[in-house]
Formats: sequence, C-alpha cells, structure tokens
Amino acid sequence: MAKVGFIGLGIMGRPMLGNLLKAGHEVVAYGINAAKLDACVTDGAQRGTSNRDVAARSEVVFTMLPDGPEVEQAVLGEDGVLAGARAGTLVVDMSSINPLVSQKIGAACAEKQVEFVDAPVSGGEPKAVEGTLAIMVGGSDAAFHRAEPLLKAMGSKVTLTGPIGAGNVTKLANQIMVACNIAAMGEALSLSTRCGLDPQVVLNAVKGGLAGSTVLDAKGPMLIGRNFKPGFKVRLHEKDLRNALLTAEANHVALPLTSLVQQMLLSLLSEGKGDLDHSAIATVLEKLSNVTIERPS
Amino acid sequence: MAKVGFIGLGIMGRPMLGNLLKAGHEVVAYGINAAKLDACVTDGAQRGTSNRDVAARSEVVFTMLPDGPEVEQAVLGEDGVLAGARAGTLVVDMSSINPLVSQKIGAACAEKQVEFVDAPVSGGEPKAVEGTLAIMVGGSDAAFHRAEPLLKAMGSKVTLTGPIGAGNVTKLANQIMVACNIAAMGEALSLSTRCGLDPQVVLNAVKGGLAGSTVLDAKGPMLIGRNFKPGFKVRLHEKDLRNALLTAEANHVALPLTSLVQQMLLSLLSEGKGDLDHSAIATVLEKLSNVTIERPS
Repeated sequence: MAKVGFIGLGIMGRPMLGNLLKAGHEVVAYGINAAKLDACVTDGAQRGTSNRDVAARSEVVFTMLPDGPEVEQAVLGEDGVLAGARAGTLVVDMSSINPLVSQKIGAACAEKQVEFVDAPVSGGEPKAVEGTLAIMVGGSDAAFHRAEPLLKAMGSKVTLTGPIGAGNVTKLANQIMVACNIAAMGEALSLSTRCGLDPQVVLNAVKGGLAGSTVLDAKGPMLIGRNFKPGFKVRLHEKDLRNALLTAEANHVALPLTSLVQQMLLSLLSEGKGDLDHSAIATVLEKLSNVTIERPS
Repeated sequence: MAKVGFIGLGIMGRPMLGNLLKAGHEVVAYGINAAKLDACVTDGAQRGTSNRDVAARSEVVFTMLPDGPEVEQAVLGEDGVLAGARAGTLVVDMSSINPLVSQKIGAACAEKQVEFVDAPVSGGEPKAVEGTLAIMVGGSDAAFHRAEPLLKAMGSKVTLTGPIGAGNVTKLANQIMVACNIAAMGEALSLSTRCGLDPQVVLNAVKGGLAGSTVLDAKGPMLIGRNFKPGFKVRLHEKDLRNALLTAEANHVALPLTSLVQQMLLSLLSEGKGDLDHSAIATVLEKLSNVTIERPS
C-alpha cells in the first residue's frame, strides 16, 4: 500500500480520496476549506497543513482542483507541492484543465526530477462515489504504470492516451462531443416540437438508429421532463469548452460547432444558470426559437 | 394479402418491393427506368405502365422517390397516382422529403377521398434488403393501422409520430442529430490528432461514456480508416438538411448548428464528393484545420 497525498477535497475529491482509503492506502489530505478537511480526517485521512506538507509526507500526490490556475498555484506556487516533493515523487493531476497548463506543470516537475501525469476523469459525482470513473491519462509509460494501480481504486477504466497533456486533450474531445450532441438534440427537438410532434415520441422513434447516443438516452428525458438538476454543471462545461478553444487556438485548429456551443453556454451563464445541468444547452436553442421542448398537455 | 402498387425502383425501392413480394402481396411496379422495371418484374412484380396505371390496379400505393418534387409529380402530376386512384385508395410515401410537401400532397389526396401517410425510412440499403428499416409514419390513426401490416414487411420498427408530415419531421430530426454528431466527432478528433494523439485511442477512451453514440461506433472507424464508401451519401444528407432548414424557415425555428453542417455538406458537393459516405462531413473540418484524422504511422 502506498503513502499518498490528496489535494482538493470538493464534490469529486472527497469521494475519490475515500476510495483510496478503502483500498487500504495511507492518505494525507489538504484543502483550503477547513470544514472539508475535517470531514476527510473523519473519513480516515491524515491532516495535511499545506500543499508542501502533503508532498513532503507522500510518495504520490493527487490534485483535484477546479481549473488550471488553481493547479498551477497548488503545484508550482509558494508552499506548493514542488516545494515539498523529493526527486522521484509522482504528481497526478486529476483536474480537468487546459492541456497546455498540464505541459507547463509537467516541465516544471521534470526540472526537479518529479514525475507528472495528467489524469482527468469523466463520470461525475456518482461515479466518483462508486469508484467507477473513466480516467484518461497523459504521461510517460513508466509514470502511467506507477499511477495505474492507485487510479484503479477510483476508476473502472484507466487509459493512457499519450504524453503529458494527452489526458486533458482526450477529456476535451469528450466534452466537445457531449456538448455538441446536446445542442444537436436541442435543434432536432425544437423543430419537432414546433411542428406539433411529441418530443418523447420522436426520441423513441430515432434512438435505436444512427442518431442514437448516450446523450439522447441520458439527457433527452431530463430535457423533456424539464429537470435540469445537475449532473454536470453548465459552468464546468463552459470552462471545458473554453479550454478546448484555447488549446485549439494554440494549435491552429478551427472548431466552428464547438465555438458556437460555447457561446450558448456563455448565454446560460449570463442568465445565472451556471449551476443547471449541461442539458440546459438545449434551452438556449428553445429560447432562440421561442419553443419549449415538452410533451403536449 | 393486399394488392399493392410500388413506384420508384431505385437502390432502396427495389429491395423494399422485394420484401412485399416475399410477404405474399401482389405488387404492381412502375418506375421511369425501364431496366429497373424489368428487374422488378423478374423478381415477381407485375408490370405497370404509368403511375396512374399502378394506382388504378392497387388498393395501396407506395412511392419511394428521391425528393419532394418527384413525389409531387408522381402523385399529383399528369397520369399520376391521383388520376388513377379511387376513393378509399391509400397512398404511402416512403421517400424522405420536405414535410410541407407531404402536407400539400396529403391535402390533395383528401380532396379525392384518398388516404395518405408519409412514411420515410432510416437504415439505408442493407436494412432495406433485410426488411429491418426504421419507419416513421405521419397520418391519421386509421390510415396508420391500414398501412402498418404492409410496412412491417419492410421494417422492423414502425412508429406513428403524428399527423401527415410528422414522419418526415421525425426523419429530419434524426438527420439533424446524425449530421451534427458526425461534425462534432470531426472537431473532437481534429483537435486530438493535431495535438499528437492517436484518434483510435481517443475513441476507445471516450466511447463508453456520455460522448458515446452510434455515430462514434459506426462512423469513427470509417473516418480513421479513411473509408468513405457509402453507407449513406453526402448528397442525400445535404438534401435532408436543406429540407430541415426549409421546414425550420417556414416554422420560424433557428437551427444554427444544422445550418453550419449543411454548409459543410455543400462544400463537399463543390468538390464532387456527393457520392461519398456522410462521414466525410468530418473531412471538411480536417480541411479547415489542415489535419488528417488517421492513426500515426
């Protein structure tokens, strides 16, 4: 069993840390919220006093933070992970961030002989609790093989997709398809509903064919039932598409649909709807055409 | 067993007619291509001499034609179906056309006490041959119940989705989602490939999650394998999205993603690529960013 650190104790981090504990690992926890740190100590973690302290006491350090700036601060900042890490420490960033930031952090780690992988997850809170996340990893083969058994305590599918940054590129590819598939469903059902059809009947008619998707199965009923309880929040998907567009810009890749759907997410933020489920992307299309995708009463 | 007529003996029509024959129905066939009519007679159909003649000899008349203008001509034109039909004849248009044209034809039929349903299909040639098409029907309950047993000779899933035109609205909803899902896959994999990832590895990492779709499973390997043998042709998908935009315009529905993807289909037509599989939509995104979605060599 390994001696590991865990930084970032939010909705995702706490259950992920819990699954490391359940697998028998010794975990030192740290997060800026004292109450959340207390909760993790109650769960069985040791109390860390800073990011640096966590790193000094661990062979492998996990970070699970909101976005790239927070990860940069936690790893590279004053009293950060790199200040406490020894040569040979492995840092595993499980946050969903801009892959360019992963590469920057990976380079800074390499200068101190610290190993780094980016390992963002998909599946949300329920799968974090169950330990069945999908985990997409970017890094060297050696670092991946070192991280893999620990990651398997948190996820059911752990895939090495390339060098450092590749985990986040894969996550962005995933988020592009999810967001665009939701928007496409919004357009298809806006048109159908305006033409007088029952959107549930349309869904049932098409879902077994080439239009079928996990989005249609998982998000179609939420949309038609007007249930936007997250799930995965609009503001997080907006962050992911923003990071996709930043990565695309740096690499001279044009993403016309993605940029359009990111604007739809911004429109939702402008209405204070950042905490709705991302299926609310379809409501921007409804609003554009003054239609509501619901069953006829 | 019913006495039925079948007009339109192309790639889809001939095997669909064949399945009506196999189910034991007596079929009068007609199409403008003499060789194709001969082939259907060889299959066991009776030879019709005109659309009008087919209608005069049948209780139920099926049409399977390229687009709305051809259906209008065949049903409403000189020597057309309505010229030969009696009160009580049922016309079943299985073409994929603008639902506004379905409604126009339905109204003209009603004036002559001829019943009409629109019943477009999805599944393409392989499922037409197997008799396992998905068939989306618009019309009255009575007309649907009359058509249903005959349609079940050609399809495995036959769904009434609303009044006349609703079959084609449902088909358009299907085609909107398929086209946009292909384009979304194109953007996700263009970005991944440019960032140095193997697109097949990305597909494998994400396909079990919320980004999963039938498009990803069926069209992803074709794209990565650079196999654009149709399947479903670009020029037919362009027609479908054009009809979706015409229907949307008439109903004041804004379809930003759909209109963008329809432009991509036009771009393919400009290059003479109308006969490629519609997964070629992704190649427009490749071209936009000067990248090829293929495995690293």
